[in-house]
Amino acid sequence: MLDYALLAALAAVVRTGSFERAAAQLHVTPSAVSQRVKLLEERMGTILVVRGSPCTGTPAGLRLSQHAERVALLESELRDGLPGVPQDGPAVTVRMAVNADSLATWFVAAMAGTPDVLFDLVLDDQEHSADWLRRGEVLAAVTSGAQPVQGCDSTPLGALRYVATASPDFLRRHFPDGVAAAALARAPRLTYNSKDRLQTQWTRQAFGVEIASPTHWMPSTHAFVDAALAGLGWGMNPEPLVADALRGGRLVALVPDQPLDVPLFWQRSRIASRTLADITRSVLTTARAQLTQV
Amino acid sequence: MLDYALLAALAAVVRTGSFERAAAQLHVTPSAVSQRVKLLEERMGTILVVRGSPCTGTPAGLRLSQHAERVALLESELRDGLPGVPQDGPAVTVRMAVNADSLATWFVAAMAGTPDVLFDLVLDDQEHSADWLRRGEVLAAVTSGAQPVQGCDSTPLGALRYVATASPDFLRRHFPDGVAAAALARAPRLTYNSKDRLQTQWTRQAFGVEIASPTHWMPSTHAFVDAALAGLGWGMNPEPLVADALRGGRLVALVPDQPLDVPLFWQRSRIASRTLADITRSVLTTARAQLTQV
Repeated sequence: MLDYALLAALAAVVRTGSFERAAAQLHVTPSAVSQRVKLLEERMGTILVVRGSPCTGTPAGLRLSQHAERVALLESELRDGLPGVPQDGPAVTVRMAVNADSLATWFVAAMAGTPDVLFDLVLDDQEHSADWLRRGEVLAAVTSGAQPVQGCDSTPLGALRYVATASPDFLRRHFPDGVAAAALARAPRLTYNSKDRLQTQWTRQAFGVEIASPTHWMPSTHAFVDAALAGLGWGMNPEPLVADALRGGRLVALVPDQPLDVPLFWQRSRIASRTLADITRSVLTTARAQLTQV
Repeated sequence: MLDYALLAALAAVVRTGSFERAAAQLHVTPSAVSQRVKLLEERMGTILVVRGSPCTGTPAGLRLSQHAERVALLESELRDGLPGVPQDGPAVTVRMAVNADSLATWFVAAMAGTPDVLFDLVLDDQEHSADWLRRGEVLAAVTSGAQPVQGCDSTPLGALRYVATASPDFLRRHFPDGVAAAALARAPRLTYNSKDRLQTQWTRQAFGVEIASPTHWMPSTHAFVDAALAGLGWGMNPEPLVADALRGGRLVALVPDQPLDVPLFWQRSRIASRTLADITRSVLTTARAQLTQV
């Protein structure tokens, strides 16, 4: 079998981004960590860590450190009922991919349901989070696709509801004659990043046509809301984050009663892990309470 | 000189991540965009765009599209007072690097000071945002280093103040005998990503020693606050975001009167752009009003 002391050193370097911080986590010296990673690289015949600030894993290094994290997860579950297994090992870390808007609305409450687990979150668009699962880099993901990734189970969570919103002043300046396709093509919008299709999807749903327009690029859920409030542009904002501002009139819906519902799914590896089953239970309970159920 | 119609097509593809969306922005067909990019690639003798979902620029493609964005910025400033220059070109987009905590606290207000500009924001840690400037990929950045990047001017903005915070319940569970180094080494903390050194810097400032501990990885400023409120861990939170929760007792400071002040600087290219000068004025005014001045 593989040498797991070496793999643990590699995983700690990839997770923390530095040999010094990995050493502190493992309670050994940085030079011990460096020797273990070098030895593993010699045995594997390939570079596993790109030394830099931060240090990052090569594709081979990432695969090995993901494997080490998975084994650590399974090992941590041996503790109950097997007195010979060390009881005080480090808490287990579970890597998951989640879209930024879920993290900003309901996902933290779901994580709080399993207080003994450490979470390592990767943020990506809901249409791309399944790629992380497909590449084996995460154990679970919030995705917009229902189709299970190979080796995974998929469960519907409900929909995150979005409202196309802008400040009243923005609406007066850019849509003096009402919100129509021609004015939408000129008014600045907000876009999260090049993966974000929500604004375009909404123009298709509301006006039957994809409308391109000048845009700000704003890779933060809360900055999206703040930028709408400040009158920089209009954008698709998660309803839970803008409900107060809509009620108070600081934001207005571009078109009344025209929300965009984005169905979300919880996909997780079929690895037989009690920890992952606990997380799944908490995610499903929280999502069913907080997302729009159709 | 270079063919700027081809460069504009390349820049639109890199910015929007797709030939279709680039075509919509430029009001031409996708096949026209594709032909222009191919022609530019033939002339340059190298691949400029990695076709994918989204499309991304190669290093050469990124350099050329940054150059195109810079020329567009300068060209947009010719409009005033030169009647022969088209007055209705697309609004100019300015790319800047900013740390997530600034974007979550004061930076949106600064952007709102120049309503005619479109912003393309890159998020990175304040200790790494200068790298984007150094590589020429942004025109300005909020950085933690005062030392000007070559070709740039640097101005102090004041400090963003952080407080080490956790929920009262978390404090009771993990620090029953008070917050001391031994208990800090066991209590779960929050870390933004592998570049985030704030928690460690604070333990050095407050306890004279760098303390490693189990950690959640949580790449979102607001999720950091939410996770502290939910009792998942302790973390360094920007004071403006947690002032209410601290007053209301939903969060407590781990150690009273022990904030961490992170000095920030505004670095911008010396390119002679009036737009960039306007943005700089708004950034300095907002920062001086909202950051801690020492």
